[in-house]
Amino acid sequence: MPDLTYADRPAAGEHGPADVETVCAAAQAAFDPYRSTDAQTRAAFLEAIGEEIVALGEALIDAACRESGLPRGRIEGERGRTVGQLKLFAGVLRSGDWMALRIDPALPDRAPLPRPDLRLRMVPLGPVAVFGASNFPLAFSTAGGDTAAALAAGCTVVVKQHPAHPDTGAMVAQAIRAAAARCGMPEGVFGELSGPGNDLGAALVRDPRIAAVGFTGSRGGGLALMKLAAERPVPIPVYAEMSSINPVILCPQALRARGAALGTAFVGSLTMGAGQFCTNPGLVVAIDGEGLDAFVAAAAAALPEVGAQAMLTPGIHAAYEAGTAALDAHAEVDLVAKGKVGEGVAQGRAAFFATTAQAFLADEALGHEVFGASSLLVRCRDEDELVAVLAAAEGQLTATLQMDAGDTPLAARLVPLLERKAGRILANGWPTGVEVAHAMVHGGPFPATSDGRSTSVGSLAIDRFLRPVSYQNLPAELLPDVLRDDAQGGAPVLIDGVRQ
Amino acid sequence: MPDLTYADRPAAGEHGPADVETVCAAAQAAFDPYRSTDAQTRAAFLEAIGEEIVALGEALIDAACRESGLPRGRIEGERGRTVGQLKLFAGVLRSGDWMALRIDPALPDRAPLPRPDLRLRMVPLGPVAVFGASNFPLAFSTAGGDTAAALAAGCTVVVKQHPAHPDTGAMVAQAIRAAAARCGMPEGVFGELSGPGNDLGAALVRDPRIAAVGFTGSRGGGLALMKLAAERPVPIPVYAEMSSINPVILCPQALRARGAALGTAFVGSLTMGAGQFCTNPGLVVAIDGEGLDAFVAAAAAALPEVGAQAMLTPGIHAAYEAGTAALDAHAEVDLVAKGKVGEGVAQGRAAFFATTAQAFLADEALGHEVFGASSLLVRCRDEDELVAVLAAAEGQLTATLQMDAGDTPLAARLVPLLERKAGRILANGWPTGVEVAHAMVHGGPFPATSDGRSTSVGSLAIDRFLRPVSYQNLPAELLPDVLRDDAQGGAPVLIDGVRQ
Repeated sequence: MPDLTYADRPAAGEHGPADVETVCAAAQAAFDPYRSTDAQTRAAFLEAIGEEIVALGEALIDAACRESGLPRGRIEGERGRTVGQLKLFAGVLRSGDWMALRIDPALPDRAPLPRPDLRLRMVPLGPVAVFGASNFPLAFSTAGGDTAAALAAGCTVVVKQHPAHPDTGAMVAQAIRAAAARCGMPEGVFGELSGPGNDLGAALVRDPRIAAVGFTGSRGGGLALMKLAAERPVPIPVYAEMSSINPVILCPQALRARGAALGTAFVGSLTMGAGQFCTNPGLVVAIDGEGLDAFVAAAAAALPEVGAQAMLTPGIHAAYEAGTAALDAHAEVDLVAKGKVGEGVAQGRAAFFATTAQAFLADEALGHEVFGASSLLVRCRDEDELVAVLAAAEGQLTATLQMDAGDTPLAARLVPLLERKAGRILANGWPTGVEVAHAMVHGGPFPATSDGRSTSVGSLAIDRFLRPVSYQNLPAELLPDVLRDDAQGGAPVLIDGVRQ
Repeated sequence: MPDLTYADRPAAGEHGPADVETVCAAAQAAFDPYRSTDAQTRAAFLEAIGEEIVALGEALIDAACRESGLPRGRIEGERGRTVGQLKLFAGVLRSGDWMALRIDPALPDRAPLPRPDLRLRMVPLGPVAVFGASNFPLAFSTAGGDTAAALAAGCTVVVKQHPAHPDTGAMVAQAIRAAAARCGMPEGVFGELSGPGNDLGAALVRDPRIAAVGFTGSRGGGLALMKLAAERPVPIPVYAEMSSINPVILCPQALRARGAALGTAFVGSLTMGAGQFCTNPGLVVAIDGEGLDAFVAAAAAALPEVGAQAMLTPGIHAAYEAGTAALDAHAEVDLVAKGKVGEGVAQGRAAFFATTAQAFLADEALGHEVFGASSLLVRCRDEDELVAVLAAAEGQLTATLQMDAGDTPLAARLVPLLERKAGRILANGWPTGVEVAHAMVHGGPFPATSDGRSTSVGSLAIDRFLRPVSYQNLPAELLPDVLRDDAQGGAPVLIDGVRQ
């Protein structure tokens, strides 16, 4: 590995095409040395990033609060989540499961033809472009889930910092560089670009050295990146998390038993963090009746008590205002309740609307995301209408069933449909709150994401930055260490299709 | 499951848009019942397809030979391969590995927040469109690798029959239907469309019910399908295997020790099946010297003895003639030798050309595939030029090292580069001959395929038709059977990240 020094570089305010060239060249140059490090070394690097982030102390929390408008407790929690993700992937690396090792030993005496020796492992795709998200300045940004997964996979990373939190991004980038220096990583293992506008990100995605893209943001932004990536001379995968309204289905028995309690709890989930979650419950679907009336009454009572909250950026606030104004003006939509009017800049006022299944089915715009604390109740006359509404919904990150034991037959009817619509199905919870775990899927069919075969949260996310390579009759000295005979070091391996 | 009858349906000569509608509607209707079958049932179905194909007897072999022009032994072998693939996936289904089960049990006492119960499994994508390949009328067509992988995954399948072998396709389709009837599968589990031209296939890929596409064919065809799929209102994955010239690197020591033997063996690999393999060795890269001269002399002696062979279609033959004529006419390309002139229609005459590294690097057209028994030797002055040639090559299905022990340092320098270029790296073999196995990768970076994260041969191919779904706090009676407590039936499961 080259002997490099790490200067303390302040964040550049505005990068241009020459910087894209420089940073991508460095990411490319670092790729082979970085991916050649063993899993233990990369695990230690990920943990060191977490340590350096913690070492930034209150200054990081201050910057993130100031730039995002999010409350201190939320940002502190997000820092814990960010460090936890890095540790999770360190554990994944040590387990070796991610390598998907397979060995089919040679069968020299097989007739009519001998079988060659075949060995397979996963290798990293190459340098990855990661776009920081506005709504998670730590956990989905500079050292967020995509960065952690890509670095774990052995990819080098170029982050396009989100312009809404430049200081936060610069501080975290500095922490990553410090960890890289401490762990002797090649300098180009991590690079960053910052600046407003879309041109910089577009140039990054077009760069021939970039092998994959991770993005969390708007539908328009994600679609633009998908188009850019598909039109490259060499197309590359794009993992864009874009748009989800996360239907919550209130089943009849649950409504009857606890409609009012559900209404109050719903308002809590809807308004948390000014509703600025990918998993915010933007759609509520239920069958008309007394239980639903109780739910609506409770929500209508709770919502006016909720104070307005600062939204992440003036642009996001403006889009939210436009979205809720369109619902306000819609002939087939009624307002249930709104939160308190805010004072000051970019204050998001929560809103809950209602419409009928017929109106929802007649206007697909009613199924589009309004990013923020806005939700739409779709009142159905019966089960068939409820099924029709869910069948008409686009792909989602989550689908939630509020149900009691008596609702099981309805829920059983819905689960196969929800499996086709969403990456995660919940019962008796709220979709906000995405556990960082092995069995988590934070993904889902288009347009929730650009690629429903993947997740952006949880340990399975490492797979998005890997591809398989097979080695046929390679001399042992040319094989990767982990594919040599009896050298799997505890990593699971499939030998002749049988798990060892 | 509905009580359906299976009529013996002759292959329709030419289907149109109405048929696309009918067959996709049936594939969609069958998807939920089919994917709900247990793995054992689907395994039996795959094996039954193999049995029905074998039961077609000599009539199938006759039809495939007649329509493809391929020799009987080759077609018999391909039938064995096709049945073997179906059996392989039956085994995969029974092992349960493909479900990627994960359980993170609830932690109700965790502070500050309890952890929910999270369970994950893979689910099938939906109805899959499979395009039959011209060069493998059995193993990559109607009941070929993509069909077997998709059916194993729980997807229903709509095959666009290749117009070059309509009778073969119709017979195999009938075998699949017979197996489906015998195993009580829903009728729409398999559908077919046939007819010439591109409109039918385009309509199939555009159909909103189709969730993924498998294709083996030309670069132009694959790129067209990628574009269609990306432009859909809901984009879908395309697995297109398109274009590969499969570089064979002749290392200096190997050339010195056995240059002549390598030359003779190379001609065997080049001309097998009229060179109509995705893995045909279309590029040979070596450093000038006596060993290379011996290789060239032996190839030049062997090739004129090789008879012309019928190519798959007149169109493929015409493209081959145009490709070799362009090399013949290229100012920087010399002819090494040609095979015998053929008599009769569409006879492919093998051809071996040579050029310099400088010429190869100056004209990217020299790196494009000429489908058939044509290959280009690139003479390099030294190792650095050899590395430059390989670095300039596009993505490949395979890369082959002919090497002796003394070549290890050079090979070790090349392997990291080849890992980025190819899905399979071979030593001291020939790329033709793709073992159906667990550790096989028949895939690779663009343009070898549209999606280098996947393989079209071997058991790992099932992954291309799956996506993960997470279940959070779902009551046991709503969970898929295999995710209930202690109900994994021997399938591997990751509990809290630890393989059980």
